[in-house]
Amino acid sequence: MTILLAGGAGFIGPNLARRLAAAGHELLVVDNFSRGLRANLPDSVPCIEMDLSHTGCVAALESALKGRGVDEIWHLAANSDIPAGVEDANVDLRDTFMTTFHLLQLSKRIGVCRFMFASSSAVYGDWGSQRIAETLGPLMPISNYGAMKLASEAQISAAAEGFLERASIFRFPNVVGTPATHGVLLDFVRKLKQDMSRLEVLGDGTQQKAYLHVSDLVDAMLFATARQTTVRDVLNIGPVDDGVTVRWIAEQVCARVSPQATIAYGQGNKGWVGDVPRFRYAVDKLHALGWQPTMDSRAAVLRSIDEIATQEQV
Amino acid sequence: MTILLAGGAGFIGPNLARRLAAAGHELLVVDNFSRGLRANLPDSVPCIEMDLSHTGCVAALESALKGRGVDEIWHLAANSDIPAGVEDANVDLRDTFMTTFHLLQLSKRIGVCRFMFASSSAVYGDWGSQRIAETLGPLMPISNYGAMKLASEAQISAAAEGFLERASIFRFPNVVGTPATHGVLLDFVRKLKQDMSRLEVLGDGTQQKAYLHVSDLVDAMLFATARQTTVRDVLNIGPVDDGVTVRWIAEQVCARVSPQATIAYGQGNKGWVGDVPRFRYAVDKLHALGWQPTMDSRAAVLRSIDEIATQEQV
Repeated sequence: MTILLAGGAGFIGPNLARRLAAAGHELLVVDNFSRGLRANLPDSVPCIEMDLSHTGCVAALESALKGRGVDEIWHLAANSDIPAGVEDANVDLRDTFMTTFHLLQLSKRIGVCRFMFASSSAVYGDWGSQRIAETLGPLMPISNYGAMKLASEAQISAAAEGFLERASIFRFPNVVGTPATHGVLLDFVRKLKQDMSRLEVLGDGTQQKAYLHVSDLVDAMLFATARQTTVRDVLNIGPVDDGVTVRWIAEQVCARVSPQATIAYGQGNKGWVGDVPRFRYAVDKLHALGWQPTMDSRAAVLRSIDEIATQEQV
Repeated sequence: MTILLAGGAGFIGPNLARRLAAAGHELLVVDNFSRGLRANLPDSVPCIEMDLSHTGCVAALESALKGRGVDEIWHLAANSDIPAGVEDANVDLRDTFMTTFHLLQLSKRIGVCRFMFASSSAVYGDWGSQRIAETLGPLMPISNYGAMKLASEAQISAAAEGFLERASIFRFPNVVGTPATHGVLLDFVRKLKQDMSRLEVLGDGTQQKAYLHVSDLVDAMLFATARQTTVRDVLNIGPVDDGVTVRWIAEQVCARVSPQATIAYGQGNKGWVGDVPRFRYAVDKLHALGWQPTMDSRAAVLRSIDEIATQEQV
């Protein structure tokens, strides 16, 4: 099978690529290398540098494929900087939604059967302490990031009526691991690398979220797609626990990287506009399929701190 | 209060404009007149011809306002031709979603407090005979029309976190009345006007949907916005009944316009790709507010057939 990985050189892409390549699939990665790196992927995986938000990328990609068919698209390309998207709505429109739109146009044009999408818990919005299942509505995202993930889901759903045979929408929790390109762990490690004496935290540190290790995430997606029986599937992916606080994360990062650092907290329980302060994910549907993560939030974060510290050479 | 009505010269806009003007508000209509007509609005309502899907419309509109503030935006501009949007996804992207995106950019720029949006039952997708309430998920639209309505909702929801004070999202059922610009009633009347002997129906006529008269729709929106207490509100608007079949509608149109016509049905229970064949709307939330429609689906359709026949001079 030939699989196109859009945004495949970033964080999750290389982890997924290794699993798919090991299963014997032919891969093609498309990435604009805004955060991704060629070096994140094995040399054996062909890579095209292309910005999928640009009009014209559909024709360019079709031409680059030279008539070679694509069976599956895994769409992982997106803006991952939520505050940047709150500041300028064009960022998420372009990097998250228009990439989806163009990949669907390509799918229609060249007859791609299956479309997998990296969606997000951010599509739900802020539900406080209520457990968030896939059956919950209305979906009221509080960031343009979440909005354009939801817009992408919607467009993919419509495409599954028109021309796709299968659409798999995975709503990611916070995912941790390497190669880290963004996120709270990388931020903390990099801040400490700059100033080993002090770690400044956005918000008061009480924000609590679940974290999944990227290896578990990839495993869950492959497990679920192999068992999907419906044309469309929407699936929350996450650990079973209610997560850990930002305060606990800050303490663990300091313990690993710079035990003498003092931690300075900000005000309020939101790190930024668009941040969901507390968040309880229902993953009953995924568990009913028979899948379990190997790590809970604590274990995933601890392992990732170590991996990221190694990546950043601190 | 100064109210901007985007897409205000079409079908619902003029009905809403009359009510808002009667309540003493200053109105400004923006329309690209693709389906709308200047003549649909009273001369006293100022009208700007502008395509809100174009980049640059935000600056142009800001300049046209000459520093005049806008308190509320009612966003009714959209593609209303579902099959056209299935054929070419750019149609709904441009006319439904980009218009929303630009109006939100304008809102941020000039400080609009309140944003009302004409969404659609199409955001839900095809739920068969299950009753569709606002709390239902996941939202899986089956047309690009529904997808771009949902994308618009999502972007508005995010804006309500960032800069809007109030966002009201109204999920319309099938709405009937005049000035009719599209829809099954107008199609049937126009087909008969061309050939009084025969009415061709897309699909087998068993599709069943609820219809609301435009006067009731406008009334429900004004009723609900006056009572909204939350930053975001999502509301199904519709009659209480489960609707009428396309077959019954065809018979009623013929009875009014051309009783001798024979009705020719197509195959299948979908009029087109993206058509939801059956559809049960839950409007408990609206009724709990204390609102009731004056007409059920049958009464709304019968009155509208008469109004549209008059409009089309048959």
